[in-house]
Amino acid sequence: MANVAVILSGCGVYDGSEIYESVITLLALEEQGANYQCFAPDINQHHTINHLTGEEMPGSRNVLIESARICRGNIKSLDEFRPSFFDAMIFPGGFGVAKNLSNFALAGANCHIEPSVLKATQTFVANKKPMGFICISPALIPKIYGEAVQLTIGNDPQTATAIETMGGIHIQCPVNNFVVDQKYHVVSTPAYMLANNISEAASGIRKLVKKVLELC
Amino acid sequence: MANVAVILSGCGVYDGSEIYESVITLLALEEQGANYQCFAPDINQHHTINHLTGEEMPGSRNVLIESARICRGNIKSLDEFRPSFFDAMIFPGGFGVAKNLSNFALAGANCHIEPSVLKATQTFVANKKPMGFICISPALIPKIYGEAVQLTIGNDPQTATAIETMGGIHIQCPVNNFVVDQKYHVVSTPAYMLANNISEAASGIRKLVKKVLELC
Repeated sequence: MANVAVILSGCGVYDGSEIYESVITLLALEEQGANYQCFAPDINQHHTINHLTGEEMPGSRNVLIESARICRGNIKSLDEFRPSFFDAMIFPGGFGVAKNLSNFALAGANCHIEPSVLKATQTFVANKKPMGFICISPALIPKIYGEAVQLTIGNDPQTATAIETMGGIHIQCPVNNFVVDQKYHVVSTPAYMLANNISEAASGIRKLVKKVLELC
Repeated sequence: MANVAVILSGCGVYDGSEIYESVITLLALEEQGANYQCFAPDINQHHTINHLTGEEMPGSRNVLIESARICRGNIKSLDEFRPSFFDAMIFPGGFGVAKNLSNFALAGANCHIEPSVLKATQTFVANKKPMGFICISPALIPKIYGEAVQLTIGNDPQTATAIETMGGIHIQCPVNNFVVDQKYHVVSTPAYMLANNISEAASGIRKLVKKVLELC
């Protein structure tokens, strides 16, 4: 059975992990016969968004503690991540990827990756272990790989341009499919960059999980 | 297409809705051809639990605002619930059901139901519109119905006894199945009262959703 690390970025699409994408990823891993362990960086969120109004609200929240809500407390700090224990890694989407795991939402092509995320991924990159990126998380790929990796965030021109400025190769892709870079073993799917509902997101995520597991 | 109201109780198993159960319910409704709308009471949570440690943490949170995290902000206050628009209602589990939608976690058989929840359900009870209850949420049934309704929370003796003290008829049930009360059109499944993983919970929830939709 493949052991897959799933990297969360908080709990809720506007300041953390997109919850539908996260749960569908975990369920797909289980249903396709893989083990998983969730991780998140032990840092404060960039900010807290009231998901009813979309406005910023008071109160500092911790990415690891809030991510623990998604997975019933069964989560570890990224500082505890041991690359040799895992065969693959998957990043669900949500603004937390662009606000907590990086500052892409603020800095665009000039973004940097959160240090514990960068550290956790580098052995994977060096060994070409498969990584899956969902929704906005492919925006992390150019800075994680430092190479021209093929990827998709769907068809949003502004995001695609920022990714290409960083050195990524953006390929348009519908919500029910994925893009795979065979050289670097990187799989990506648009999910809620394009999805109109949960089952559309699920259609692409299930295929991404299958492809990531095939590459293990 | 059936229109189904899904009642959330926060965001996270220990002080709100169980997130896996909530997402699986919404996905199953979509995949089985139903529309859904999420609702939650606009009240403060009983308390806030650090899901990493299981300990109470500072900071008051609102049930409606936190529930909005699960469903990307697409949620309404239970005060806006109009029973005539909906064919069925489903309650995912999580301690929020026993701490926010009622005080069952504190008062057991002497619990009361949160007023907006009680109000929202009474027209459904009177018209025998189908309702589905997942995990711990069947603990609400005796006080909502005021009748001897057949239900399950799996096989936990203490919870089953409290439910029977309130007048419910508890029936033991495995995680991959459900109990239906044909007279009152009430469907229940144990989910994370028994589940060891997401796919076990999903197996019963998908069947519950199917049965609820059949009863519409």
